[in-house]
Amino acid sequence: MTYVQHHKLPDQITIAEYICYRLKQLNIKTIFGLPGEFNMPLLDKIYEIDGMRWAGNANELNAAYAADGYSRIKWLGCLITTFGVGELSVLNGVAGSYAEHVGILHIIGMPPTSAQTKQLLLHHTLGNGDYNVFYRMGSDIACHSRILNDSEFCYSHVDKCIEMAWNEQRPVYLGIPVNRIQMVVSSSHLNRPLNLNTLRYPNDSNSLTDLKLPKELDMKYDELIDNILKKIYLSEKPVIVIDAGIIRHHITKMAEDFIKLTKFPSFVTPMGKGSVNENLPNFDGVFAGSLSRPNVKELVDNSDCVIVLGCLLPEFNTTTFHFGYRAKTKNKIFIYPKSVKMKNITYPDTKIEIVLEKLLLKYDSKKVLRTFSHIDTINVPRQTLSDNQLLKQEWVWHEFSKWFKPEDIIVTEVGSSAFGITQIKFPPRTLSISQPLWGSSGFSIGACLGVLFAANELKKESSCNRYENSSIEESTNLKSLQDRRIILFVGDGAFQISMQEISTMIRWNLTPYIFLLNNAGFSVDRFINKKSNSSKFDVQPWKYLDVFNIFGATNYETRKIVTLGDLREVLSDEDFNIANKIRLVEIILPSTDVPPALLEKWISERA
Amino acid sequence: MTYVQHHKLPDQITIAEYICYRLKQLNIKTIFGLPGEFNMPLLDKIYEIDGMRWAGNANELNAAYAADGYSRIKWLGCLITTFGVGELSVLNGVAGSYAEHVGILHIIGMPPTSAQTKQLLLHHTLGNGDYNVFYRMGSDIACHSRILNDSEFCYSHVDKCIEMAWNEQRPVYLGIPVNRIQMVVSSSHLNRPLNLNTLRYPNDSNSLTDLKLPKELDMKYDELIDNILKKIYLSEKPVIVIDAGIIRHHITKMAEDFIKLTKFPSFVTPMGKGSVNENLPNFDGVFAGSLSRPNVKELVDNSDCVIVLGCLLPEFNTTTFHFGYRAKTKNKIFIYPKSVKMKNITYPDTKIEIVLEKLLLKYDSKKVLRTFSHIDTINVPRQTLSDNQLLKQEWVWHEFSKWFKPEDIIVTEVGSSAFGITQIKFPPRTLSISQPLWGSSGFSIGACLGVLFAANELKKESSCNRYENSSIEESTNLKSLQDRRIILFVGDGAFQISMQEISTMIRWNLTPYIFLLNNAGFSVDRFINKKSNSSKFDVQPWKYLDVFNIFGATNYETRKIVTLGDLREVLSDEDFNIANKIRLVEIILPSTDVPPALLEKWISERA
Repeated sequence: MTYVQHHKLPDQITIAEYICYRLKQLNIKTIFGLPGEFNMPLLDKIYEIDGMRWAGNANELNAAYAADGYSRIKWLGCLITTFGVGELSVLNGVAGSYAEHVGILHIIGMPPTSAQTKQLLLHHTLGNGDYNVFYRMGSDIACHSRILNDSEFCYSHVDKCIEMAWNEQRPVYLGIPVNRIQMVVSSSHLNRPLNLNTLRYPNDSNSLTDLKLPKELDMKYDELIDNILKKIYLSEKPVIVIDAGIIRHHITKMAEDFIKLTKFPSFVTPMGKGSVNENLPNFDGVFAGSLSRPNVKELVDNSDCVIVLGCLLPEFNTTTFHFGYRAKTKNKIFIYPKSVKMKNITYPDTKIEIVLEKLLLKYDSKKVLRTFSHIDTINVPRQTLSDNQLLKQEWVWHEFSKWFKPEDIIVTEVGSSAFGITQIKFPPRTLSISQPLWGSSGFSIGACLGVLFAANELKKESSCNRYENSSIEESTNLKSLQDRRIILFVGDGAFQISMQEISTMIRWNLTPYIFLLNNAGFSVDRFINKKSNSSKFDVQPWKYLDVFNIFGATNYETRKIVTLGDLREVLSDEDFNIANKIRLVEIILPSTDVPPALLEKWISERA
Repeated sequence: MTYVQHHKLPDQITIAEYICYRLKQLNIKTIFGLPGEFNMPLLDKIYEIDGMRWAGNANELNAAYAADGYSRIKWLGCLITTFGVGELSVLNGVAGSYAEHVGILHIIGMPPTSAQTKQLLLHHTLGNGDYNVFYRMGSDIACHSRILNDSEFCYSHVDKCIEMAWNEQRPVYLGIPVNRIQMVVSSSHLNRPLNLNTLRYPNDSNSLTDLKLPKELDMKYDELIDNILKKIYLSEKPVIVIDAGIIRHHITKMAEDFIKLTKFPSFVTPMGKGSVNENLPNFDGVFAGSLSRPNVKELVDNSDCVIVLGCLLPEFNTTTFHFGYRAKTKNKIFIYPKSVKMKNITYPDTKIEIVLEKLLLKYDSKKVLRTFSHIDTINVPRQTLSDNQLLKQEWVWHEFSKWFKPEDIIVTEVGSSAFGITQIKFPPRTLSISQPLWGSSGFSIGACLGVLFAANELKKESSCNRYENSSIEESTNLKSLQDRRIILFVGDGAFQISMQEISTMIRWNLTPYIFLLNNAGFSVDRFINKKSNSSKFDVQPWKYLDVFNIFGATNYETRKIVTLGDLREVLSDEDFNIANKIRLVEIILPSTDVPPALLEKWISERA
């Protein structure tokens, strides 16, 4: 039975409906954004299709962050804005998705074609008749862009946009003139499966499949793999660094197998954190360039074979940058999603899934008989602390490291939280959502909303078995994601930037734990710029715990934490540990205190 | 005595100081934005210079709106952002300034030059080594853009940026690599007066000056003026429409003189509202294209000579658009800031100041002996209403029309407020701040903050006579601006988008009147899309009156208004009428009620 038959769809549907059904096939069921003059007929369609929902965000940039957070769980986020005012409001969020390789379908409701061709003056234009300026700007941060104008092939343009966003894990710009939303297409096109790389390389395959590559190509891969293995077998101090490409390309399972197989000391980058089981005996923590803990830095910088798996960022030879690898060029192997770089030679047009699969097949552990020393990655305070101590960043993260449990999804803001979280060893199957490269303040609240929607859907999907596409189900390993706790760490400065999105969480009865680290402003900035007049890092003191009440919450809990004892008490409270209501915990911290990662760097620089 | 001598400046100053002193010379004393990685050394300088202040906004887009609002009072707003995350967050606000002709100096703190030339990977980049992408995007909505790289001429680049923003009344993009902020320049350049058009054509000149144009140019103008006057003298039903170019080019006084001299029925566009005295006997209200009141529309559409003064927007021949003029082409005279269009002929390279000055000189009222009928523009409810009536938009605006007083500055949000305010006749010297063309929801709260800073400065400047540049003082007519009431009208949907900026008002002890029109969502959108599922126009119900308390306000007043009697009572309360604290008045309105302007259009369309 075809998809159309199974769902009893009419022969002809509008392009708006077509988009919604395509998203629904991928289990993308929440769409983010605000209503606007040119997107309203599109929003109407969402309400008409069973199972789809319109989030109705409070703020547009927050909506973009939410689509990003949602996509990091479900591999695609959909954001609808309106021409001009709407699409420009989200650019910073979409640029973040571009930088961090997150798949976003950004749909823009545009003025009617007639207005555009006649250059009529409309609201939300620059007043100069230029209808292309926003498209140009949006295309600069999209892997693909398209305006739907012709009715004959519009369905295939939509398919292409969705496939690009999913496969490239980047934003796509899809403009739809408001008069085109009713264009009719044959629903039969929905019967063609989308061409998604996930389906070719399922993440949770338990056995290595026959690759069946054309012979010439196969030999090319074999030659490359031989080179990589030769380098590895000759090395004395190999290390593995896992970057976020492993998550985005759905091969965390294979990466973990490689770590287990080789037993090399293994690290994650800040962007890759949460992608592999941190309880493996050879998992040694986070490598963050010059901001790494000194023993991590030493191990990676002095390695004679650094294997970077799922590298998302081009290599830059810098000794100062946070993400930089200081090991000698001849000692580095970068395995990018679509290429490999080794000893200054780039091997283009490779697929990371195949490289990794072949590495696993061909690696001969008998050729590496050494054992490797490992680092104790748990961050234990130097002395035993009493309950009546005022809090410090270091102790806070230590307490949380004991509180996290398997399956938690932890969302962290730029600043103190992002630095702090890298020092914690996660329980198995913990997911981490943060934005370490793009680093936009205020990201975490919006992203957390998106994660909440995604987790909420996964729970429902799992319980009522309503998957539309069983191969998606298998590949995304959704079952393990149900019923997770969603935990947000955000500073007071970032909270003030995007706090209205908490109202959307309340509106949908979502139940995150929100830990607000209140250090009276932007403390990391204050710390980095010690000589600055510090008042510019201050923020207005708010009564943070009252915001739930203002936003109309009825079932909620708030706490204020001043001492270590307060924190221990709340984290061990049984009721508190049931994620059945939205919670806000304000943690009071000294304004000049920063996480140990930064402190250690500062001390070593002084030395 | 030179400026440098007078202010006892050292011979050499940094380019950061140079920028601050240039702004101070123009009485631009508040700078908007948030701290970020690459702008911090720049912010430090602001704190070092006496009289300059850093607003410290809560949210970046709101900071852009604030710079816009500030500029609409003081002719230039300065906004500082950081590379990538910061500059992209403000694009929608800056695009609004571009569309509505508002002068903005947008300074972007960029990564150090060394990182850019080596394409090092840094925070806030797209991760692909492209450092120009944000510059390209920003330049698309700027009248001028520049990155400061050479030390020899950097001061002249700064001058050029400021002159362009001021004279063109558009945004300028000025990028400064963080390592260039300490570049040293000779302070003597500050002695050269900036080349500003305001100073050539002071707004409040009481007599027409000798123009002393080159003879050929003078003849060209004379020929044009003769053509215009011939058309006017031959017409039977001439009307004047005043657009915002009159405000932006500082010639409101001349425009008003022309209205008085001709006695033609005169209107303002929504963008031009507040630019001329609405109590002149021949002021006949707001012309807003198809959204005008029927009697206004009839008068303008059927005129045989529509004179549009200070037209900011190109003409578009549309019968449906809000800003469209339906009169026949041969009957329209568009006087743009830099050209005149009449009978399909464009006269380029004219200056509106000269055109208007010559029109005033040459107009012969004896040649126009007809009298003109006028419209009663006051909007009186059809029946006498009792105090216990629940409120409707129409009645609300009627009550406010009696409450406004001379010198008020009224800031209105897109949506109900913007439609409502056009129906009110302003007292003399009322200023109106709104964004009718760009129309970005949430604009008004940020803009109001900027207006508050500007008005606060004008008051101080006036009382301690601290003008640095006396010709600026004369030309901007600042004295009349002191001690004004700042009144904001905002809907609940827009309030949720940018409410955190109220915290910045509280932080600086600013004292606006905030009238929150609570109609449970986006009512104008709900009205325009009657057939839509209306839930997408809903917003989460908030306890709005509690936000002052959350934001740490101590000296404030809040009121909830349900009946007409409530509104009458608060508006007539003597204490309430002293603007000595921040006030929030929540006005409860039916969710499907819209201002009369929209209602009338709807009724006429049904007929």
